[in-house]
Amino acid sequence: MESSSTPTSEVDVLIIGAGPAGFMMALWMSRLGIKTRIVDKRTDKVFSGQADGFQARTLEILDSFGIGERVWKESNHLIEVSFWNPDSNGVIKRNGRAPDNISGMSRFTEAVLHQGRMEAFFLDAIAASYPHPADPSGTPLKVERMVLPTSLEVDEAAAEDDDAHPVTVTLRHLTEAEATPTQKLSNLSDGLFRSNLADDDVGAMLAQSKGRADVREEVVKAKYVVGCDGAHSWTRKALGPEYEMKGEMTDFVWGVMDIVPITDFPDVRTRCMIHSASNGSLMIIPRENRLIRMYIQLTEVSTGGRVDRSTITHEMIFKAAQKIISPYKLEYHYCDWWTAYQIGQRVGSHFSKCDRVFLAGDAVHTHSPKAGQGMNVSMSDAYNLGWKIGLVTKKIMPRKILSTYELERKQIANELIEFDHKFSRLFSGRPQKDILDETGVSMEEFSKAFNMSHMFTSGLGVNYSPSALVSKPPEEALLLESDKEVQNEGNPVAQSKLSAATHCKPGMRFPSHQVVEQADARPWTLHHKMASDGRFRLFVFGGDISQAAARERVNALGARLEKGVLARAPRIELSPAANPFAGTARFRLDQPPSVVDVMLVHCAPRGEVELVRDLHAVYHPFDAKLGWDYDKVFADGESYYEGHGHAYEGYGVDSERGAIVVVRPDGYVGLVTELGEENWGEVEKWFEGVLRMA
Amino acid sequence: MESSSTPTSEVDVLIIGAGPAGFMMALWMSRLGIKTRIVDKRTDKVFSGQADGFQARTLEILDSFGIGERVWKESNHLIEVSFWNPDSNGVIKRNGRAPDNISGMSRFTEAVLHQGRMEAFFLDAIAASYPHPADPSGTPLKVERMVLPTSLEVDEAAAEDDDAHPVTVTLRHLTEAEATPTQKLSNLSDGLFRSNLADDDVGAMLAQSKGRADVREEVVKAKYVVGCDGAHSWTRKALGPEYEMKGEMTDFVWGVMDIVPITDFPDVRTRCMIHSASNGSLMIIPRENRLIRMYIQLTEVSTGGRVDRSTITHEMIFKAAQKIISPYKLEYHYCDWWTAYQIGQRVGSHFSKCDRVFLAGDAVHTHSPKAGQGMNVSMSDAYNLGWKIGLVTKKIMPRKILSTYELERKQIANELIEFDHKFSRLFSGRPQKDILDETGVSMEEFSKAFNMSHMFTSGLGVNYSPSALVSKPPEEALLLESDKEVQNEGNPVAQSKLSAATHCKPGMRFPSHQVVEQADARPWTLHHKMASDGRFRLFVFGGDISQAAARERVNALGARLEKGVLARAPRIELSPAANPFAGTARFRLDQPPSVVDVMLVHCAPRGEVELVRDLHAVYHPFDAKLGWDYDKVFADGESYYEGHGHAYEGYGVDSERGAIVVVRPDGYVGLVTELGEENWGEVEKWFEGVLRMA
Repeated sequence: MESSSTPTSEVDVLIIGAGPAGFMMALWMSRLGIKTRIVDKRTDKVFSGQADGFQARTLEILDSFGIGERVWKESNHLIEVSFWNPDSNGVIKRNGRAPDNISGMSRFTEAVLHQGRMEAFFLDAIAASYPHPADPSGTPLKVERMVLPTSLEVDEAAAEDDDAHPVTVTLRHLTEAEATPTQKLSNLSDGLFRSNLADDDVGAMLAQSKGRADVREEVVKAKYVVGCDGAHSWTRKALGPEYEMKGEMTDFVWGVMDIVPITDFPDVRTRCMIHSASNGSLMIIPRENRLIRMYIQLTEVSTGGRVDRSTITHEMIFKAAQKIISPYKLEYHYCDWWTAYQIGQRVGSHFSKCDRVFLAGDAVHTHSPKAGQGMNVSMSDAYNLGWKIGLVTKKIMPRKILSTYELERKQIANELIEFDHKFSRLFSGRPQKDILDETGVSMEEFSKAFNMSHMFTSGLGVNYSPSALVSKPPEEALLLESDKEVQNEGNPVAQSKLSAATHCKPGMRFPSHQVVEQADARPWTLHHKMASDGRFRLFVFGGDISQAAARERVNALGARLEKGVLARAPRIELSPAANPFAGTARFRLDQPPSVVDVMLVHCAPRGEVELVRDLHAVYHPFDAKLGWDYDKVFADGESYYEGHGHAYEGYGVDSERGAIVVVRPDGYVGLVTELGEENWGEVEKWFEGVLRMA
Repeated sequence: MESSSTPTSEVDVLIIGAGPAGFMMALWMSRLGIKTRIVDKRTDKVFSGQADGFQARTLEILDSFGIGERVWKESNHLIEVSFWNPDSNGVIKRNGRAPDNISGMSRFTEAVLHQGRMEAFFLDAIAASYPHPADPSGTPLKVERMVLPTSLEVDEAAAEDDDAHPVTVTLRHLTEAEATPTQKLSNLSDGLFRSNLADDDVGAMLAQSKGRADVREEVVKAKYVVGCDGAHSWTRKALGPEYEMKGEMTDFVWGVMDIVPITDFPDVRTRCMIHSASNGSLMIIPRENRLIRMYIQLTEVSTGGRVDRSTITHEMIFKAAQKIISPYKLEYHYCDWWTAYQIGQRVGSHFSKCDRVFLAGDAVHTHSPKAGQGMNVSMSDAYNLGWKIGLVTKKIMPRKILSTYELERKQIANELIEFDHKFSRLFSGRPQKDILDETGVSMEEFSKAFNMSHMFTSGLGVNYSPSALVSKPPEEALLLESDKEVQNEGNPVAQSKLSAATHCKPGMRFPSHQVVEQADARPWTLHHKMASDGRFRLFVFGGDISQAAARERVNALGARLEKGVLARAPRIELSPAANPFAGTARFRLDQPPSVVDVMLVHCAPRGEVELVRDLHAVYHPFDAKLGWDYDKVFADGESYYEGHGHAYEGYGVDSERGAIVVVRPDGYVGLVTELGEENWGEVEKWFEGVLRMA
């Protein structure tokens, strides 16, 4: 395809596909000031329908970029679930209510808002990253639409060269008429557009445009390419036949409708799981603006093998819903969107090539949408990958860290399809008539499975395997046979001592508890001090520093950090979104901060600590233009207006012994150890394994 | 000025001045769909400095328009105050710390953010009101800048005519060069611009432009004109000499500086009140982005009489601050803004002419800025006035309601200057050396006065006098001699029974407590269900409606409301900001809702109530296109994730007896009565006095 006249350019990162994973990747790149392009074959964004569930962990992640609260405010929150099953006469009855998720795990719970709104928030968040001191001439990146990749090559010999651009991609810019038209609002005739019942249309698009004079091509040489291009992923196919999706399709076909219901069914504003006696199952997800989403089992078309999509219409889907919900009446005037899909679970065999081309989101895992996981796991893939690519590109981390992407995310993809496999069979199955009905599904089993699933579906249960980034104690590390190879390869010398902070588990997300800012008494939940800005956090749980011994221990650690980790770790330019002083010359720091952000959480009475007088300067860094930084020291104590956060209890830290917890830029715990001097070397070892230390 | 060739147009409301009061008025008008223009003589908005304190009640008000959380998120929150006074050697020492305000009064506390940011939020909120079904051709109004009014006349004979446009204003459109240049960022030479030490510049602007060919004039005929044009108010002067400011100036001169401090003073991130032994006083207000605001007493220029502004520079102000704060060191690299002002307290003699021209904000009250009241009281003036003008214009309320503006807000203005008079003298005074030092200020007295001031300064203590809009019980109504005339004129027949809801006081703002939504179990603080959309709220505290007797009482009241108040009260078109279905044809309600919004708060176990089956339709109104409205019924009970709101306790309602509380569109309690049938007539009487009933 490439000819001598084809324009050629370089870029650090090329993202293919502007869905949830692509946008998350683009957002990370903007916050880190990495030169990036994002292309998509479609003409415009998603207006309605598609994925809409935001799980608690996803909201925490979005909040770390400053947009979680916008979703939280506009979305509908799912609080309660009710279970409806056939009674002895076969009539559906509510036989249980339960909270939608576990209380107290996160400050967020499950919420729903349509995907199109989300894209606007991403674009705002990307714009807020500029002007970026690491990329002063950069402007907020925009999605380049109607652009299709046509070839992809990796120069494997140059893969380990830090300064190389070893991935070559040819891009074709289509004319507007050729790009696949997006489904428009209230256009009910094309509900199966983008369904997994529809065929991939890229081949046709390419064939049509090939060789034509009005089509423009260019060659992009990229350091990294990320394929976020969905279930039909062109990128995955371009990597060769060994990049295949493994798994199976089922006979279960489901319809989806977003309507404003007119009904006498009483639980239409709570999440409902309805199993009818013989008409299939229905799930109701109440949404914003009086809408509800219905997932409707289509028993009539579930006859084995590939489904004939021409038989599926919104009328037949709605009739199926009416049958399931009867004797209650269900009508509607407004339908916002509809589609249908066939349930299947598949995972990609490989998630990367040479750690230069990566696959994320639906490109490497597909499953049924009912548990609201798709968008969340896709965003989480990119959230896991983005900072790794970014910090490697900036030469802050070595390239070997990139192998942890497949290690960590393939594990989650496998857990996801295992969960989905079990859950969709339970939900699609016919309810058991009695205890002797062996092919029916026991409603007790279903309800139990639902309640067991909370840690997984909320995203809060993610527990990554050991690697350079996750130091588990030897006994835990040894349990995971499958990861031994990776473990040994990038084997961290550092080992965690879990007893120091029993609720901070290496590999799991650092929880958020309220503390009180030393300097101004303001209560914060610690996640608010952990913006996704590329920095590692080193939390020093210093104990009662009003006592001389504890204070001296904390200050001795400060002196060691100053000469050790902080002197040797790279520095990082922050975007204005993470640091309001970054964007304007008049407020710029004398030099960028360390990539290791030290924070002290003590449990002394706040009034007995004088920040500047009592504490080593690593806990209040000085800048010649801006004075002391007062925003690094927090007390675990009673706040004036918001009560006591009991953070030491929440993190499982003993107030006498204290703890050190290292948290990765994505909020996952990397290392837990004790506060005593004999453990400081362990912290240094951990950073040696992760950063390019001076 | 008006000639035959001058273009003439009509508008419902003309707002003169685009400061906090003008923007609040414009926002109300946009939400009510009233045709409005807003003009300002300046070329652009405020970039830095000026007012920056947001009190708790102001944040509640902004939140009722959907922008409170944006201020809350970006602002710095003031949590703690520390008091520094001279010790026996005359050296300043911290001798006390206290919470900045009272806990538990509001979900907000005092916060600071510069005024320029606020204007962006107002414009966004105004844009969110469109497309407005009451003004389908309307577009979001913009500030018309560089426009000066040159004449104003009221046709008093037509003042009571509902359809008249009795106010005639001539507007002059200046060229850009003539409009007074605004102070620019970091331009430290013109810090006294807009200070009360500066002279009014409008006369000069007018004289310069008079009769010139390149100046355009127009005549506007308005139903209502609101002068929000500041301390030098042109509108006030145009109303005649009887519209004067009454009060006095003092000898105290203060400087103001916004800097990023470099200092060893330990409390620079808390609000500080520093009285030095002989160098004057200093207040520190920590702000967003490491800035602090300092209010600095300038003892050297306080020599009696009018101050010579030429002697005041930012260098001399900063030196004064350094002296007060010594022996601590204070330096800075960045100064964001500075000014100086002379303390005085003045209130306008009249707040309106014929209830057709109104004055709001600094146009009718000026005082010292240190208590952070200026912007708040100005916005509150307009918040009080806006819905009254709007609902009268829409013929939903009779014109007589407009007289409550002066009744209610002049009272607050008088309270404000009384508070400021006392507080600024205590703060500007020299600290008492010992108990025999009679001209010195006792630090105990100061600290006590500060702590007493919280209800007032938070804005939560506002308690409006009785009127048609505020039914107090006879014993309370009689206490206010000064208001007897107004009271008798618009005398409401309805009388409150305070014992029914002991923490809902007529004339005070309806508090906010958490309840759980019946339909979906979501916890809400009730203020979130009380958007500023022009509607009155009728809260039915129905008791334990799982009991037949209580349920029947609530349903009987429902039937009475359906035939009575709801059948006879006008309906109101809502903006999309208050009702997401309003803006688009596909989601529009069959007919607009009643201006009386009925909500039920019960205290039955939520699981024992079935919303549609158990309750009268006034509690879940049906719409042919959108089905039942599930958003009107709430339980006072335990939520799944957010605890128990104890709303009955918070509102002071007995769960057996229940209560009815009527709340005005601005959130102030109008009527409190008991739930029993013998009180229903009282509710009807109250609405008779306020609405134009059919």
